[in-house]
Amino acid sequence: MARAFKKFIPMFDRVLVERFAPELKTKSGLMIPEKAQGKIQHATVLAVGSGSKTNKGETLPMNVQVGDKVLLPEYGGTKIVLEDEDYFLFQEKDIIGKFES
Amino acid sequence: MARAFKKFIPMFDRVLVERFAPELKTKSGLMIPEKAQGKIQHATVLAVGSGSKTNKGETLPMNVQVGDKVLLPEYGGTKIVLEDEDYFLFQEKDIIGKFES
Amino acid sequence: MARAFKKFIPMFDRVLVERFAPELKTKSGLMIPEKAQGKIQHATVLAVGSGSKTNKGETLPMNVQVGDKVLLPEYGGTKIVLEDEDYFLFQEKDIIGKFES
Amino acid sequence: MARAFKKFIPMFDRVLVERFAPELKTKSGLMIPEKAQGKIQHATVLAVGSGSKTNKGETLPMNVQVGDKVLLPEYGGTKIVLEDEDYFLFQEKDIIGKFES
Amino acid sequence: MARAFKKFIPMFDRVLVERFAPELKTKSGLMIPEKAQGKIQHATVLAVGSGSKTNKGETLPMNVQVGDKVLLPEYGGTKIVLEDEDYFLFQEKDIIGKFES
Amino acid sequence: MARAFKKFIPMFDRVLVERFAPELKTKSGLMIPEKAQGKIQHATVLAVGSGSKTNKGETLPMNVQVGDKVLLPEYGGTKIVLEDEDYFLFQEKDIIGKFES
Amino acid sequence: MARAFKKFIPMFDRVLVERFAPELKTKSGLMIPEKAQGKIQHATVLAVGSGSKTNKGETLPMNVQVGDKVLLPEYGGTKIVLEDEDYFLFQEKDIIGKFES
Repeated sequence: MARAFKKFIPMFDRVLVERFAPELKTKSGLMIPEKAQGKIQHATVLAVGSGSKTNKGETLPMNVQVGDKVLLPEYGGTKIVLEDEDYFLFQEKDIIGKFES
Repeated sequence: MARAFKKFIPMFDRVLVERFAPELKTKSGLMIPEKAQGKIQHATVLAVGSGSKTNKGETLPMNVQVGDKVLLPEYGGTKIVLEDEDYFLFQEKDIIGKFES
Repeated sequence: MARAFKKFIPMFDRVLVERFAPELKTKSGLMIPEKAQGKIQHATVLAVGSGSKTNKGETLPMNVQVGDKVLLPEYGGTKIVLEDEDYFLFQEKDIIGKFES
Repeated sequence: MARAFKKFIPMFDRVLVERFAPELKTKSGLMIPEKAQGKIQHATVLAVGSGSKTNKGETLPMNVQVGDKVLLPEYGGTKIVLEDEDYFLFQEKDIIGKFES
Repeated sequence: MARAFKKFIPMFDRVLVERFAPELKTKSGLMIPEKAQGKIQHATVLAVGSGSKTNKGETLPMNVQVGDKVLLPEYGGTKIVLEDEDYFLFQEKDIIGKFES
Repeated sequence: MARAFKKFIPMFDRVLVERFAPELKTKSGLMIPEKAQGKIQHATVLAVGSGSKTNKGETLPMNVQVGDKVLLPEYGGTKIVLEDEDYFLFQEKDIIGKFES
Repeated sequence: MARAFKKFIPMFDRVLVERFAPELKTKSGLMIPEKAQGKIQHATVLAVGSGSKTNKGETLPMNVQVGDKVLLPEYGGTKIVLEDEDYFLFQEKDIIGKFES
């Protein structure tokens, strides 16, 4: 299935991510009731912009790339809906960290 | 019919857009009740300014062009009415992304 | 009649404008009741400043000129009264766009 | 009579002004009741600072001079009392415009 | 008597001042009741810092000096008590003007 | 046991820390009731970003390194949960100080 | 006794200070009741950071040194507790002045 985000190009230093499905158990095997699951902070990068512009018009390279597993801040970002699925856009500077594969 | 926006030139890095008509069904064919339709975030670029000025007076080139399909932020922008139709102006930096054709 | 604004020189990047008289009908000929007329966003440029100063003391040229038909933001600007008539001052950067003649 | 402001030197880009006495009639001759007179926006420049400093320590020249008739913003400025008379200090960048003589 | 401020060196662009004693009469000889006396805006400079630093580490020279009679803004500044007497510290940029002697 | 933070790379000038377990006694041996224990300000650095970027795209070196014992501000930082344990991310500029070993 | 702050190194332009014990009498010998004693603004510098960084990565030298008697602003700073004693951290730019010895 062609996915909607494949045709989407974030502007400047924006990064399109898809949050992981929430895990419903703790490591020790306990079920987590829904209201305690919190906001999912892990996500996968689906698309990246070409980079922000300096005030001289130069483009700065991005530091994340498609496929990176990243950690998002608890607040911020913009939710967008592409073909009935939820995605999120963050500016690169607001991404907290990434996980080595 | 000559359309009003044809004579309109946005200043600096402003972009004139026309929002898409809201889709009233989901992909799966369900009707969406009006209050759940939300704010339409997709739009077409109708006119672009000549670019923002650096503090040395140089003009920076724009990154969107007439005809681009873009994604708008949920808030912001300025609504203007030209010949009884609603248009919106955004600064280029606030446009979230564009769609490849 | 000599008009007051002829002797008035805006400072820096300020622009003196006169709003258009409100149109009381829609394109389709319907009368618009007064409270629905909204704030008039169209205006004519009557005087322009010599341009803002960089922090090196250089003057940046202006992008609008006397006679331009411009579109104003819904909020902002400073109302001034010269010889019992209302005029408005805007910084050039806050003018949304202009109309080609 | 030696006037107090003669010995007063504004710092940096500050401008000392004296507001015009309020006009109590409209052009058409009607008396204006006191509460409708509004805040007087016209003023005469009495003293100017030597100019603001860049962050390299250079002084930028001023654009108004003693004797200029200027238009003030409705809010802002600092009222000072010199020998029982009211004067006002504005930063030059906040002066809206000046009148040609 | 050695005064406390003699040993005090303001940091960067700070200026130590002593406010004038309030005048209790108007020029015309009327007594001013205490609550109408307002905040004393006149002061004498007692000590000045060595100047603010640029972000390259250079020191910018000061524009007021010990002994200057200055005019203070109505709000702002930091009150300090040295040997039971009240003094005030202002950043030089917040001093409104000075009086020629 | 492989610890989760080993695979985590903070972005830019962010620093991943683990707070010390709270001490439940004062130096003089008194037990501290829980509500008086306050927020633990001591922490160990577990991972550091590659450094913030200048607006020319250069990377500035970091001033803390893995293993440093640091003092955190009372507020701020972002709590993250990795494999059921709490960690915190701070920007380097917000770390108050470090302890010599 | 080895004091805790001896091992503590403030980051960047931060300064570790210890406030003076409050004086409980005025110069004229009157006892000051506790609620009138105010916040102690005098302090001794115990440790200084290596200096703030410019956005080019250069370190700017500090203007206070260990042992300086300084005057603190009434608000601000961060209280830290090292071995059951209260210390305070200020950024150098917020220190109001110092006293010559």
